[in-house]
Parts: sequence; C-alpha cells; structure tokens
Amino acid sequence: MSDKIPVGTAPSPRRKKNVLPAEIDTQLQSRDRRRFLGRGMATAGSLLASSAVGATAATAAPLPVPATNQSMGKPIPPNEYGTPSKFEKHVVRRRTDVLKNLQNWSDWSMTPLQYQPGIITPNGLIFERHHGGTPDIDPAKHRFVIHGLVKQPLTFTMDDLVRYPSVSRFHFHECSGNGLTDWLKPASKTVQQTHGLLSGVLWTGVPASTLLEEAGIDPRGKWVLFEGADGSAHTRSIPIEKVLDDVIIAYGMNGERLRPENGYPVRAVIPGWEGNVSVKWLRRIKVGEQPWHFRSETARYTDPMPEGKWRQFSMVMECKSVITSPSGGQQLNGPGFYEVTGLAWSGAGKIRAVDVSFDGGRNWREAMLEEPIMDKCLTRFKIAWNWDGAPAVLMSRAVDSTGYVQPSVQEIRKVRAIVGFVQHHNAIQPWSVNAKGEVSNVIGQA
Amino acid sequence: MSDKIPVGTAPSPRRKKNVLPAEIDTQLQSRDRRRFLGRGMATAGSLLASSAVGATAATAAPLPVPATNQSMGKPIPPNEYGTPSKFEKHVVRRRTDVLKNLQNWSDWSMTPLQYQPGIITPNGLIFERHHGGTPDIDPAKHRFVIHGLVKQPLTFTMDDLVRYPSVSRFHFHECSGNGLTDWLKPASKTVQQTHGLLSGVLWTGVPASTLLEEAGIDPRGKWVLFEGADGSAHTRSIPIEKVLDDVIIAYGMNGERLRPENGYPVRAVIPGWEGNVSVKWLRRIKVGEQPWHFRSETARYTDPMPEGKWRQFSMVMECKSVITSPSGGQQLNGPGFYEVTGLAWSGAGKIRAVDVSFDGGRNWREAMLEEPIMDKCLTRFKIAWNWDGAPAVLMSRAVDSTGYVQPSVQEIRKVRAIVGFVQHHNAIQPWSVNAKGEVSNVIGQA
Repeated sequence: MSDKIPVGTAPSPRRKKNVLPAEIDTQLQSRDRRRFLGRGMATAGSLLASSAVGATAATAAPLPVPATNQSMGKPIPPNEYGTPSKFEKHVVRRRTDVLKNLQNWSDWSMTPLQYQPGIITPNGLIFERHHGGTPDIDPAKHRFVIHGLVKQPLTFTMDDLVRYPSVSRFHFHECSGNGLTDWLKPASKTVQQTHGLLSGVLWTGVPASTLLEEAGIDPRGKWVLFEGADGSAHTRSIPIEKVLDDVIIAYGMNGERLRPENGYPVRAVIPGWEGNVSVKWLRRIKVGEQPWHFRSETARYTDPMPEGKWRQFSMVMECKSVITSPSGGQQLNGPGFYEVTGLAWSGAGKIRAVDVSFDGGRNWREAMLEEPIMDKCLTRFKIAWNWDGAPAVLMSRAVDSTGYVQPSVQEIRKVRAIVGFVQHHNAIQPWSVNAKGEVSNVIGQA
Repeated sequence: MSDKIPVGTAPSPRRKKNVLPAEIDTQLQSRDRRRFLGRGMATAGSLLASSAVGATAATAAPLPVPATNQSMGKPIPPNEYGTPSKFEKHVVRRRTDVLKNLQNWSDWSMTPLQYQPGIITPNGLIFERHHGGTPDIDPAKHRFVIHGLVKQPLTFTMDDLVRYPSVSRFHFHECSGNGLTDWLKPASKTVQQTHGLLSGVLWTGVPASTLLEEAGIDPRGKWVLFEGADGSAHTRSIPIEKVLDDVIIAYGMNGERLRPENGYPVRAVIPGWEGNVSVKWLRRIKVGEQPWHFRSETARYTDPMPEGKWRQFSMVMECKSVITSPSGGQQLNGPGFYEVTGLAWSGAGKIRAVDVSFDGGRNWREAMLEEPIMDKCLTRFKIAWNWDGAPAVLMSRAVDSTGYVQPSVQEIRKVRAIVGFVQHHNAIQPWSVNAKGEVSNVIGQA
C-alpha cells in the first residue's frame, strides 16, 4: 500500500484546500481493491457470498429467477407519505445509553450516523434535544413577534412569514453536548452515542436581517433575544452582528415544513453555532442593548476553565470530524479492502482537509473530500484502507478554512478544566480494531 | 417596479451564467417589500393578521403567553423514526387525477412540488412509478450479477456491494411521462399533477464503472442491460459510454437506504436520463454488442415524429423549468409582494439561467438562481413580483450550460407529432392569475 498511496504528514496551519478528484481517488482505491480481489479468489477459489472479497465469481449456471419476479408487488395507495423498508427498523433515533434520565421531557435522542451515507440526515432521523418536550403547535394560530429596540414592533402569522423572500442553505446542526459523556475514557459504544447529536439539514426560511430591517433596528440594539413557545420557554441571547450575518427564521427542512420535534412551525437557525441557540417553536425576537444572561447562559452551556472560572457565550462549534465507518460496535469481515469514511464540519467556515491515521496518530494520510464542500456544512471524507488483519487504531483530524486544526483530548485539557460531563467536545475520536475485526471506542486511551 | 429591476430580453443561446448574489436580490426585493408594507399599513392601519402586508404592526400590549409555554410537550420515545406534523397531512404523494387506471400496479404517484422548499425531496414524498408494484426484497437474500461480455462474471451480495468505494451525488429524477396529460390544453390543476413526476435526490452508491472494471469489459461490449427483480422484470439497454461516465449502482438516498418503492435494496441511477432507465430492484447487468429492444424501448418510452415514425432511445431529459409558487390551484391573498419561485433542471448539464415572464411571454426578467448549482440537479430560482391585482400569466424559461433554451409547446410541435399522451414534455408552463387571485393551468392557451 505505502508505495501506492502518498503518506501525509501532520497538517500545517493555513495550508491549501486539497481535494482529490473523485476519479483519482477511485483509481487509487480500485488498484488496491483489484489486487485484493485477485488474491482473495486465488486463495479461496470459492463462490461463497461470505468471502472477504468484494464480489464472488459467478457460476456458469443461469441466475435463479427470484420470487419477486414472478408476482406483483404492493400497489400504490391513493395518498401516501412513505416509510422505510421493514428491513431497516434498526435505523432509528435512540436516547442515550449512558446518561439515564428519570424523566424524558428534558432529554435527547441521537442520529444513527453509522448508517447515514452522504451529508443530509433524513428528517425522521434528525437528533432531538428538548428542555420541556415537543409542543404540537397549530400553525394557523401561531404568532411570532419582533419587538424591543425597533422602530415598529411587528406581529407575524405563518402566512405572513412565508410571503417574504426566502433562502435555502445546507448547514450542519450540532448540540454543544455532543460527546459529553466521552472525554477521558470510553462511556459510549457506537458513533450514534458518541457523535449522534449531529445532523445535516437543508434549512429554508427568511433571513432574520430581512425581518429586522422591516421592523427597523434602533442603533442602540446590540443583542437579540430568541424565545420559544415550548414548556421551558427556552431563551437565548445572540449578538446582533451574527443575527444580521446569516441567521434564518426557518420554516422548512430538507424539502418540507419543520417536524414538530425540530421547532414546527418556525424556529431560529444560527448557522455553525451550538444547536440550543437555534431556538425552536419561535414566538418572539427582542432587540436589546446587553445579553440577558438566561439560565442557558449561566447554569448551562458554559465551559469550566483551569483557573476555576466558567466561560460564557462560547457558541461557535469548532472544527471537528469523526469516522463513521468503521466505527464503534461494527465488525470487520476479515482482512482486505475497506472504504474508511466519515464526516467533518466547522462552525467557522468550510472544511479544507481531513487526515486519517491507522496507527493511533503516528502517521497520517490525507482523505478525499466529496463535493459540494459548503460553508458550515457537513463534508464527507473517504480514504482507502487495506486492513492486514493486525490491530489498528483509526483517527480522523479535520482542518477548516481558517487554518484551525482539530485538537486531541490532551490538547483541549491544557486549556479547559475537563471534569465530568463538559460541553464543546471537538477532540479527535479514536476507534480501535482488534485482530478479530471488532471496532471499539478508545477515547482517552489512544 | 420596472425602474428598479432590470427588464431582460429573450435569452440568446450560449450566454454566460448569471447568478445574482443573494444579498443583491434580497436588497431589490426588500426595497419593494418595504414600500409595500408602508402603503399597506397606511391604508389598513389595522392589526389584522389577514392583511395583505407581510406583517402587522404589533400592539403595545404584552404578547399573550400561549398554552404550549405553560405545559410540558410530548416526551421522547425510546427508539423513533419521526413523522411530519399532524397539521401537514395534505402534503402527500397522490395518484394522478387525470388518467384513471383500472389497476394500480402499473401506476404512478406524484411529488407535491407546491409544498417543497429547496432542491431536495423528502424520501416519503419522492414520486413513484412501477410497472408491477413494489416488491419487498430481503437485502440479506438479494443477489446482483454482472455477466455477458465480461472477462469474469461476478455475483454480489449487498454486503459485498457496500464494501466498494462509494460516491454521493445530488441529481434530479424525472419520469419521461412528466407532463404527459397536459400538452395541448389543461388537464391537470396543480403542479403536483402537471410536474410531480420529479424529485431531487442525493444518491449514494458505487460507480458502475468500478464494478464493470472489476469484471473486466470485453472490447466488443457496447451496450449494457439492466434488469429489475420486480413483477414486470423491467429491463432497459444503455450505451456503455454513459454507464462508464456517471451511472451509480445505488443503495442510498437522502441519507439512508433506498425506500422499497424506489428500488430497495439496490437500483441503477442514470443521471439526467428519463427515470425508467434507472432500473430499480436491480438483479443483473449484462454487457452486449447491441441494444436489446425491450418492450420499454419499442412499445413504450418512444416519441412520435411528424413523418409517422417513432423515435427510440431519446433518454436525455432536456432542459426544463416550472414555477411552483404561485402555481395551479393556489390563491393569492390580494395585491402586493410575492416571491415567485420554482425549479429548473437539465439532463445535459447545469442550469445557467432562468427567465420569468408575468405577461404571458411578452417581457422577461432574469431570476436569481440559488447556490449550489449542480450538474443534472434541481436548481431553485426566485424572483420578486409586486402583483398589481390585474390578470397576469406567469411563465419560466430555463437555459442550460450547453446553451439549450427551454422551448414552448408550439416550438416542440414543429418537430414532434403531439397527439394524445406523449412522452418527453419539457415545454414552458404558463399559470394564469385572475383578478380574484386564483391561479390556473393555461398550457396550450397562453
């Protein structure tokens, strides 16, 4: 392998974006794969479908005609919203296996990233995080208000809101608590549990700047309050520069209206920032001079620092990546070719590069990034791996368009006080592969 | 309006791509909208939510606290695949209102494009077209074979297939029969019925070229057969140049495995070509020297020409667009600002420009195209419109990266024999707006 695929070094800050054309990457991978296929067939010489090679040589006998070719399938019902195959029932959101709540209103459920191809999460699998459960709001009765330091307070119905010029933008969406349970040692088994408070969404709505300009911003206005219509009246303060830059008052996600658990009928979307600031079930925006220091800005969503103080308003989700396949709980089917793939994202911009190590961080190779690579959006990376059957530790390390390099847990511990369950965990995630092909979480160990 | 927004002329072939930055377009729209808001408030001076303006002035009284702020919502269930709000039950696939089948195995259901924001169709709303109903195939038992003019025939299990290097690509997907019922006069009322055999999908799978190279293509191989495992054993012939160019053997769509009605567990995706060639429930690929002239290549999916002959293998879906809002069956809520928006796509490449007419094709203005603009993919266009309350006829006309301009029905009739229900309808779609704000299909009339 090593003479065929360039071996990378640790990324230097500010290096250029390096995207391998898909064709070149496929050629690289194809060469290794073919070699492996040849070897597999020579040694196995069998037609077993369970062979370690990517395919088996076909027999000379005709392909059997399956029963589905000999009968009619299910007819089309008159009006239908489709659902997944009955053979995919394992692909669901799951509540945490680690933190057991005594109630499930202030709770979360996680996206099964190990089963997600591409960079979009289906709406039925987008992670949930509520402080007071999901309200079921009639859009015809919902009202949304802009007030405070504005020239003319305004009330919007949903019919009003969808009349305004809209935008649709692809962004990642991540809870600041993603990785909360896995800092110093492995607590979670699968990537759904370690990283599943993460989804990829095409949001649609009205730029907040359009609506605030309509109301007219008082020059004293520096912070903006967003409040939800849920049981917790979840409320956050956002600097007006960010609100006017790229915040969306969203009613659509991935080609349809929001789902109830994601803020139906209207929510804020604060691109690249911790998920909880994107207030759901939005009922008002208020312009003010100072942040309000709500409960979610003092008692929650803050970071302990080494000197004993707590950092507030650290809302940008910094550059991060994770290998989704192979990942914890999966089982490799013997030595041979594997496509190692995962997701990378940054709240500060675009992904410039992702490096992957197969030996616990000693050597790194640069992965292929799949187009389109978009601002504050999930980016899919891929790299060929011929597993020789020996134990290995796989890691990915992302670099964003600002030059920021995803850190190790050890590096974060130098500047933060990591004790117990702490927010804003963007460290490198290691997965170990043992000689049996079992994949395990070894965070803090590797 | 006309002094504020540039008035375009008919598009000339080969002109440059013209994408307005979102900010500029928003400014243009915002200026008109603000002017309208001011006028609306001056005349109405009311707080009615049903006012024609985009928002109403808020009262000085505090915003009432809704019931949802005073109670807990729905808790998170343990393992869940989410579903849309109960208030969105009208957003479903529907069978045709025009062609009434006596059976519903060889049938179709349509995507509700009038409710779709953005360029992605949720999997529950992707249109269906089956010739023998939907089989329900166990992926553990499914086999897929490559044979014919290859050096080594190969059999794949699904586990084999997903080991190969994968790609994820955004593409439009359209049935060649989209618009079948509406050539010479209006038969359908809504855009779901006129254009809903169209969806936007992020496909994931293995390039067909990778698998064919694995089998080794005999130099005599010029055409490739794709056969489904469904009740109709649907089968098509594709030139090998296209297969090696960009065809995907797909198992994923929009972030999860295929849905049963869309080919689970594996299908072909032939980007930019008529939907039926993207054979679902794929069981074999055979390489041969000539096309096979299957039923779907002779009795079906052909085009009548003026001289009485029928054109075969016209599989590229040519450049097309449609306004999805306002569209047939919708009701404008009085004069004022509207964002006119729709979709454009081309099987020959990217969308370069879309022009919109508000007067039945006499004058045209260029719409804003929303990024990302991708190859053989839906592109969303938007343009501001201040409706003065007089009758209007809205049309959109797309131009693709080859310079091809979407034609009128009259232009198509010069080169095709349009009698009855005919495939490959990519003509300009006109919607009329009467003085009451009712929107109607006027194909062939305007």
